[in-house]
Amino acid sequence: MQRHFELALESLKADIIKMGSLAEEGIASAIRSLQSRDTALARSVIDRDVEINALETRNDRAVVDLLALQQPVATDLRFILAALKINNDLERIGDHAVNIAESALQYAEREPLSLFVDLPRMSSVTMDMLRNSIDSFIHSDPLKSRSVLVNDDVIDDLNRKIVGDLSAAMRRDPACIDQALELIRVSRNLERVADLATNIAEEVIFIAEAQNVKHNVEKTVPGH
Amino acid sequence: MQRHFELALESLKADIIKMGSLAEEGIASAIRSLQSRDTALARSVIDRDVEINALETRNDRAVVDLLALQQPVATDLRFILAALKINNDLERIGDHAVNIAESALQYAEREPLSLFVDLPRMSSVTMDMLRNSIDSFIHSDPLKSRSVLVNDDVIDDLNRKIVGDLSAAMRRDPACIDQALELIRVSRNLERVADLATNIAEEVIFIAEAQNVKHNVEKTVPGH
Repeated sequence: MQRHFELALESLKADIIKMGSLAEEGIASAIRSLQSRDTALARSVIDRDVEINALETRNDRAVVDLLALQQPVATDLRFILAALKINNDLERIGDHAVNIAESALQYAEREPLSLFVDLPRMSSVTMDMLRNSIDSFIHSDPLKSRSVLVNDDVIDDLNRKIVGDLSAAMRRDPACIDQALELIRVSRNLERVADLATNIAEEVIFIAEAQNVKHNVEKTVPGH
Repeated sequence: MQRHFELALESLKADIIKMGSLAEEGIASAIRSLQSRDTALARSVIDRDVEINALETRNDRAVVDLLALQQPVATDLRFILAALKINNDLERIGDHAVNIAESALQYAEREPLSLFVDLPRMSSVTMDMLRNSIDSFIHSDPLKSRSVLVNDDVIDDLNRKIVGDLSAAMRRDPACIDQALELIRVSRNLERVADLATNIAEEVIFIAEAQNVKHNVEKTVPGH
């Protein structure tokens, strides 16, 4: 029974890790499709969302079975509940990848904007947060989780700057309004992905430290 | 022990219902503050988000305690897991109320747009969805939940129409760009609230019918 339980836990963890890779790949590909105007890539991101959705459903069932059949307590219970939430967060990240890919398709139909907007930095910081939050889950590393939390404000500032730059561009040249609106949508979707990466990091801290850091976050890396 | 368990379950349910009222009130007030340019009301929405956050933390702890101490199975287990997710959904709805209130503050600083944009209908459909999803949870009424699911497409269409109308308005009159951007942000936040209301409705169906309707939804009301 104990052995079976451990195997089921490992399998849940493996599926969450797989989902994490799919979510990460989805966001990375969606951003790449926007930058390189690669509509086939954008469409493949939209098509592949079913894989994440199928994994979410499977993981949800695994959680119900684990709780019903094994009645775990303490660290195992915290791990399973956190996995349930992370599962949901990753599925939402998949949805944001789809939104970005849809914007990439719209954007590719028109002239690209000639101004520099700092979406490359925004997506690189967001991808780092996402990767680190998933790594911190894989290695049960709450110190790495805390490094994710500090970046949430950086993302908020970048989003505000990008939206400001793009609305200024629209005022200067109304012909670029549709293009600028798509990039604003991308920026807001990246901001939500960063929020969800922050949630995942908070869940990892919850598993490790049995404390709920949400709404009461020390946004500092210990020693800094 | 059994009596204690039932009381704890009732208390969790009462807290979720309270959170539902706060979330509903938050969205309604945020929209009213936008329409009536009431900045004091908008600020009160932003300030009151701490109440929802505090309830979320309390409910999360209640779920861990219920699962660890009582090791429920079957319907009770499904109810508790659904409550955990609904708790999270309602907290996010609170965040969207804050976003809309922030847009209301920005919007109130400038001339209102003179064109008609169908945000009143969008917010009324969204509020209906939210109210029905919470009601369906209170009364364990999966039929009412299904009535929520059918509206998700209506909201997507309304959002597309509103964003289209506003981008056309920006092209006609670039002086209204900042105002129009705020209304687009409001529309997208309402769309997310409708998505979350849909999630809540799906969870209620999950409790009642032990089936996961997510990603596999019959978007029809039985008999229609």
